[in-house]
Amino acid sequence: MRWREIEVSTGSREQLVEITSAVASEIGNSGVENGACHVYVPHTTAGVTIHENADPDVARDMLTGLARLVPAEGDYRHAEGNSDAHLKASIMGFSAMVPIIDGLPALGTWQGVYLCEFDGPRRRRVLIGVLGS
Amino acid sequence: MRWREIEVSTGSREQLVEITSAVASEIGNSGVENGACHVYVPHTTAGVTIHENADPDVARDMLTGLARLVPAEGDYRHAEGNSDAHLKASIMGFSAMVPIIDGLPALGTWQGVYLCEFDGPRRRRVLIGVLGS
Amino acid sequence: MRWREIEVSTGSREQLVEITSAVASEIGNSGVENGACHVYVPHTTAGVTIHENADPDVARDMLTGLARLVPAEGDYRHAEGNSDAHLKASIMGFSAMVPIIDGLPALGTWQGVYLCEFDGPRRRRVLIGVLGS
Repeated sequence: MRWREIEVSTGSREQLVEITSAVASEIGNSGVENGACHVYVPHTTAGVTIHENADPDVARDMLTGLARLVPAEGDYRHAEGNSDAHLKASIMGFSAMVPIIDGLPALGTWQGVYLCEFDGPRRRRVLIGVLGS
Repeated sequence: MRWREIEVSTGSREQLVEITSAVASEIGNSGVENGACHVYVPHTTAGVTIHENADPDVARDMLTGLARLVPAEGDYRHAEGNSDAHLKASIMGFSAMVPIIDGLPALGTWQGVYLCEFDGPRRRRVLIGVLGS
Repeated sequence: MRWREIEVSTGSREQLVEITSAVASEIGNSGVENGACHVYVPHTTAGVTIHENADPDVARDMLTGLARLVPAEGDYRHAEGNSDAHLKASIMGFSAMVPIIDGLPALGTWQGVYLCEFDGPRRRRVLIGVLGS
């Protein structure tokens, strides 16, 4: 299994940033024909998810929906004031696993891979690893 | 790693459909003794989770609970009217990873693997891949 | 791929218990240099997540935030009275996948791996498997 690290710069406190092309390119470089690509975010206030890549309103609706679930202000004790970001990141998760079939990412027609920023703007690291043969 | 695709037909807008037997059968066919089975849903309005398979009321309570978290109607912009389904799917996730120990799925006593339909009824694809040796 | 099982005793109904050291030790014992560590919770009312390990208030805020999302009391039918625990566990998920780079867990600076108890106190099983070479 080989790992590569990329950097993503985010531009606002909450943002979905598509990283599908970095995932596809790492799969291509690996030469793996059948396997899985592990996309990992080594942060606690950013996560990763799969999401529709056709209509930007879907991303906006997802951030709005998450903000209603987990308000930025609330009965929080953590002094840094970003407790909502920690919970949102845990809800989305820190790993996405993308199947690799015949050397290509087997994403659905409308699926893209997205870094989920919840406490930006920041520079974020993403680890991309390819398993298989 | 080998991948197989199955199809699941869902019968209502929101439904949990158990697919544990397809997972177990693919693990059996693979001959893998120790590894992990990757169950992947290549859609953006359906996901996958692990869930109790003993009492059907648990599935009903989960869908009711998620619907309270993410109302079908709301301040959404996405024109297709299924923004709630996208968020629910991202909350559940698109991959389940099931350990394989001694050639069998190492699920807990009460665990089953479920496709989570949030915008049905539809025909859904599920990819099942087996890693290990 | 090799699997090991550990036991974790929880002390209250809801609790985050750090298990990073067990994960790191299993990675060390495996001799794997580059791969991924699969941490799996074979229960339906406990899950696993990655979380900040520096400030205990973050864990408290996460449990409080989840309890607001999914109230313990509600319009539930499941007779055991722990429907909230099932939904919380599905939201967190049952697998965490930790990258292994140069023989070490490639967790972020502030990341730890946590068992999420939602229906304790209980004894819980955790499966830890190492993939790679």
